[in-house]
Order: sequence, then structure tokens, then C-alpha cells
Amino acid sequence: MSRAVVLLSGGLDSATALAVARADGHECHALTFRYGQRHDVELRAAEAVARQLGVAQHRTMNLDLGWIGGSALTAPLPVPKHRPLDGPATAEIPITYVPGRNTMFLAVAVAWAEVLGARDVYLGINAVDYSGYPDCRPEFLAAFQQVARLGTRAGVEGGGVTLHAPLAGLDKAGIIRLGVSLGVDYALTHSCYDPDAAGRACGACDSCQLRRRGFERAGVPDPTVYAE
Amino acid sequence: MSRAVVLLSGGLDSATALAVARADGHECHALTFRYGQRHDVELRAAEAVARQLGVAQHRTMNLDLGWIGGSALTAPLPVPKHRPLDGPATAEIPITYVPGRNTMFLAVAVAWAEVLGARDVYLGINAVDYSGYPDCRPEFLAAFQQVARLGTRAGVEGGGVTLHAPLAGLDKAGIIRLGVSLGVDYALTHSCYDPDAAGRACGACDSCQLRRRGFERAGVPDPTVYAE
Repeated sequence: MSRAVVLLSGGLDSATALAVARADGHECHALTFRYGQRHDVELRAAEAVARQLGVAQHRTMNLDLGWIGGSALTAPLPVPKHRPLDGPATAEIPITYVPGRNTMFLAVAVAWAEVLGARDVYLGINAVDYSGYPDCRPEFLAAFQQVARLGTRAGVEGGGVTLHAPLAGLDKAGIIRLGVSLGVDYALTHSCYDPDAAGRACGACDSCQLRRRGFERAGVPDPTVYAE
Repeated sequence: MSRAVVLLSGGLDSATALAVARADGHECHALTFRYGQRHDVELRAAEAVARQLGVAQHRTMNLDLGWIGGSALTAPLPVPKHRPLDGPATAEIPITYVPGRNTMFLAVAVAWAEVLGARDVYLGINAVDYSGYPDCRPEFLAAFQQVARLGTRAGVEGGGVTLHAPLAGLDKAGIIRLGVSLGVDYALTHSCYDPDAAGRACGACDSCQLRRRGFERAGVPDPTVYAE
């Protein structure tokens, strides 16, 4: 059974990407990062999703991005609420962007894949219903594919590691429909950028709005409890 | 004064790259990683070099690559000694290669540059007298430049971050001559992959052999004390 490394944040998208990797027939090695995010509810969500979908192993790596700053997800800056989801919202890069995050996550994922002998890395980025982060776009992923090819033993000695973004072209409703068909339990996932002390989703950040609209459009009941 | 981020390992090459960044007129922000290497003598060397060359600040980031394994620098595997320096030695990738290392280092450097408002990142990679690591080659760096352009706020909103490898085309002797001309005190630097308990260089690993030969060819006295 071929191995795959799957980046698993605990959110809706990465849970779906994990389900796709599993459906593609891989033995899945899930990788989560404690990167200085202000809340750890998503780490618990990642554990629950990994368990539900039956991974071979699940690693959570400490990666201190907090000292770099520059993001409302790792520094005490307010998370924007009730931003319009279309138009300007996705044309500008919001303050929830975390500099270098996906590049670092991919670097670790590819390194681990090399050592595991895995040829495939899955991640749940998508650029349709998303927050406008530059490191979620297909052109970014294509550039990183070249880095993986040229900067690794696996790439140079043959074989190499292939990056898969199976959700790249889907909107949130499409992702949810796909995940439901693959058995994802979305009640276990967490999307909110700014949960309350009890871990409850705010309902108003970009991520909550995209999630809520996705379930509505997919015609799937949203299991999330929102604060507003 | 424009800011630059400089990757500083404590070795001969990165010390020289820092001196070049300084000579280029930058206010230098040095970045070192505690990445699970088996010895920390190089971390102390990085501190000494940063002090000698007068950086604006020096950060050491914890980055636990030890769990990934696959390298003699982070796992209890023997470091090869007395390998021939030319021919096959640089045609194969040795066990001292650390999967993903430079990709992660660059990801953090570029992220920090974004937040600092720095437009330039310097690193001391070279592909002439080197250990044959894939992530030291110019083609790897060119690929990462694309990642930096496409995956960052700085790259998307204009300006961007430019990577500089000022030693890329130099052999070790040329690097040493350049560094001497720029005031680098090589006695502060550390190159050995396998120092003894006292931090003394082994004299026989690839890195020691390249260093020793570099000083000889440059006609510069080698300040290093080697165990053999």
C-alpha cells in the first residue's frame, strides 16, 4: 500500500483532502502543526478527524511562528468580521494571512515523505471559496512542486514527491458534497479563526462565513454551533 | 538603511554571506536554527559571528527536524569520514543531507523578511566545493525564488523578496579570500559535522576536508584546530 503524507489542520478542507487520499488507496500519514495559533481547538479537531478517518499515524509538530508576527492568527490583532465574501474580500490579502505558513508546512511534509518513502503529499488548499491567501493558489503550489523536485534526495535520485491539491478547483459546497460522499464527519472539524473560550465558532470571520455558506449551498445540514 | 535577513549557521560560508550583505549596505537581521543537530557548537559560533560582524539582531529559532530523521546530522547515524572530495563524492547525496532543511530555513527567512519589510534574503549556499546536497544548487534557489514571489504578501502586493546566494559560483578558496577581504574572523566559525565533546573539528568529514583544502588553496592560515 503506497504511503501518502496529508497536511491536516483540523478544518473542513484538510479533512476532505485526507478522505480523498484515503479513497485514492493510500496509507495516510497525517501531519498537523502547532504553529503559535491563538487557539488549540483546531489541534483537537485534527486529532478527532485523523482518528475518524483511520490514519496510519498522526504527528503534530511544534513550529513557532509566533515570534515572526504579522498575522492576526498568531499575534494579538483583531480578526476581521463580516467581511463581504466576494469581490474585494478575495482581491486583497487579509490580516489573517500567516507569512510563510504553507511553504513551511509543505517543506516539512515533503521532507517527511522522503523519509517515509511516500511519493505523494496531499493538502486541502483551494482558491475558489478562500480567504485570498497567496499561498493557497495553484501557481504557488506549482512553484513549490519545482522546489520539491529540485531540493530533495527523492527528486534528484528519481521518483520524487508529487503534491496533490484535490480541492483546488472546487467551491466550498463542492468540497462538502465530496467529503460527505467519502464519509467525512464534518461535526469533528473546526474552521473558525476566532473561537470563544469554549471553542465555539464565531460565525462572522471569513472562515465561518465561507463554511456556513458552503453547507447552505451544498444542501447539507451544518453541524456547527455558531456564536452568532 | 535597507534591511536584509541573513541565514547564519555558524559555518564559514554563511559568515561570508553575512559579510557580503553588510558590504552591500544592509542592516542585517541574522537567523539561525536549532534544528535538532547533534551538537550545538555551531549555534555558539553563529552567535560569535553575528557579534563580530555587528548585526542589528540575531534570532535563533527552534525547529525540530529530529523526529523526521533520515540524516546523520539529526539522527544517531555515523558521519562519513575521509570521502574523496571530487568525483563520486559530489555526484551522490550523502547521509549528512537533512531532508527539507534549506527549504524550511528559506521559508522562515522570507516570512521574517516580509514582516520586517526587508526586501533581501542572503544565504551562503554554494555548489562548487560542497557536499552534494540538492538544496544547495542554483536551480533549487531559482525554484524557491518563485515560491517566494507567488506565496507571499510581499510578492503579490509588489516589491517582493529577492534571494541572494553571493557565494554560488565560488570555490571554497574564493569564499575564504572574499571573507578575509571583508573582515570575517574565520576562527569564530565552525564547519565540522562531527565535532568531539570539546567542540573540536574532526578533520575528516566532508565539511572539514573542504574547509581545510580551501584555506590551503587560498593561501590563508587555517585557524581551525582539527582532531586529526
